Amino acid sequence: MQFARIGATGKEIPALLHDKKYYSLEQVTRDIDADFWETNGPARAAAALAAGELAELTVDGVRIGAPIARPSSVICVGMNYAAHAAESGSAPPSVPIIFHKAPNTVAGPFDPVAIPRGSTKTDWEVELGVVIGRRASYLDSPSQAHDYIAGFVTVNDLSERTFQLEVSGGQWSKGKSCAGFCPTGPYLVTPDEVDARGLRLRSWVNGDIRQDSSTRDLIFGVEQVIYDLSQFLVLEPGDLVCTGTPEGVALSGRFPYLKAGDVVELEVAGLGRQRQEFFQG
Amino acid sequence: MQFARIGATGKEIPALLHDKKYYSLEQVTRDIDADFWETNGPARAAAALAAGELAELTVDGVRIGAPIARPSSVICVGMNYAAHAAESGSAPPSVPIIFHKAPNTVAGPFDPVAIPRGSTKTDWEVELGVVIGRRASYLDSPSQAHDYIAGFVTVNDLSERTFQLEVSGGQWSKGKSCAGFCPTGPYLVTPDEVDARGLRLRSWVNGDIRQDSSTRDLIFGVEQVIYDLSQFLVLEPGDLVCTGTPEGVALSGRFPYLKAGDVVELEVAGLGRQRQEFFQG
Repeated sequence: MQFARIGATGKEIPALLHDKKYYSLEQVTRDIDADFWETNGPARAAAALAAGELAELTVDGVRIGAPIARPSSVICVGMNYAAHAAESGSAPPSVPIIFHKAPNTVAGPFDPVAIPRGSTKTDWEVELGVVIGRRASYLDSPSQAHDYIAGFVTVNDLSERTFQLEVSGGQWSKGKSCAGFCPTGPYLVTPDEVDARGLRLRSWVNGDIRQDSSTRDLIFGVEQVIYDLSQFLVLEPGDLVCTGTPEGVALSGRFPYLKAGDVVELEVAGLGRQRQEFFQG
Repeated sequence: MQFARIGATGKEIPALLHDKKYYSLEQVTRDIDADFWETNGPARAAAALAAGELAELTVDGVRIGAPIARPSSVICVGMNYAAHAAESGSAPPSVPIIFHKAPNTVAGPFDPVAIPRGSTKTDWEVELGVVIGRRASYLDSPSQAHDYIAGFVTVNDLSERTFQLEVSGGQWSKGKSCAGFCPTGPYLVTPDEVDARGLRLRSWVNGDIRQDSSTRDLIFGVEQVIYDLSQFLVLEPGDLVCTGTPEGVALSGRFPYLKAGDVVELEVAGLGRQRQEFFQG
């Protein structure tokens, strides 16, 4: 199944995306949020669709929001592709490296993005995002992780490299939490429709390809990441876990950083394509 | 004014603390949360108290919760006291170093705390916590920060040093977000009743003093921290900013780490004292 949220920022209507049509879930749930995942939301949505109870939404000219409500946490795994670690000047990690983005960075997949004031190094990062479906603490093994996943999304883990690496004392979050720095969506796909082990990830700047890799190359795969995180913190339903970006970002030195007017597109195969135009904040 | 939240975890009643009595704010607000701060909650609470409209709460034997609802972000400043930076083996930072704790770590000031599974280095950190009162983005100067502060609280920024420093790839959050790792309270004091520039901070383990310093020694003071954060992210009403801990933690090598049965107490002058008993998680 596929879920989306449609409408102006802060006023999104939860929707089921089925056969390229959007159906309102307003009678099923308040939002695509923790409560939805904790109360068998997908099954209730499917039943309502089958019963013909869902009204179709007109989406022409309407904003597509992030497919999830603001999470309680956005947790990212750093350096999780060997070639990206190398282009960043690092050895591949022996344990998952985690950091947080402020949850209010989650934005729609087509929302324009401000280049932060003072930024000279705004950078893109296409990533496979994992949305948590139930509270996860101390999983016994990675094989349990599947039961804790609500779905998968395309994420742009936008980063300001000066803030992240040069004026940060080494703690990356300072360059990861600027306003609008986590475009998410356009839709969420439930795990029954996705094999997360071999998804192509691509990004483009002004139409030129930048990243083109596969989740096959993840150092720590999705199930290992969820298991590992659950040993150190409590994942909540609706939380967003960003699994890391492959090579091909500006930090590599091979491409210029973003400037006002640039257009970034990103796609994770099967999870939809994003497009953001950048402007000076 | 002083605010508190009274009752079982997840079912706390918002309260006004006045002349050592607790008054229910249920008719004024749903919670001590973003909405409360954004809608002149303190003024409405004061008016209701003056009008005799608030019922006194019986608190004997009732749990004291954190004085704030779960924030959208918990943002911490690291190494913000020179002597603590030194005991941690670091030079004093030239810029504020920031990291996040997962917001679901916020707990009551007297809640027992689990030593995480696999932990051998659970450590205490008394801190002055600042609660944000209104959305803060790109403040023009530190002198504006006062208008964005809802109040001050005592915080224990609990830390697992192996997770934070040894199996983290250098990103501290992994050792900062274990369940229950952010005891907060017992109450929040509004800025008109606190001069944050010279508050004594102390902590004890099993009655023995560990930390005894003053916010006078902050490298980056409260207003500078809020100003600086607002240049890199958007602070939301209700967010919690932990301003850093002074010297006297176990990481220094001068004291043993915490073990099951230990009792930690912490106090920031004027903001109340916490007490946590530790157990094996």
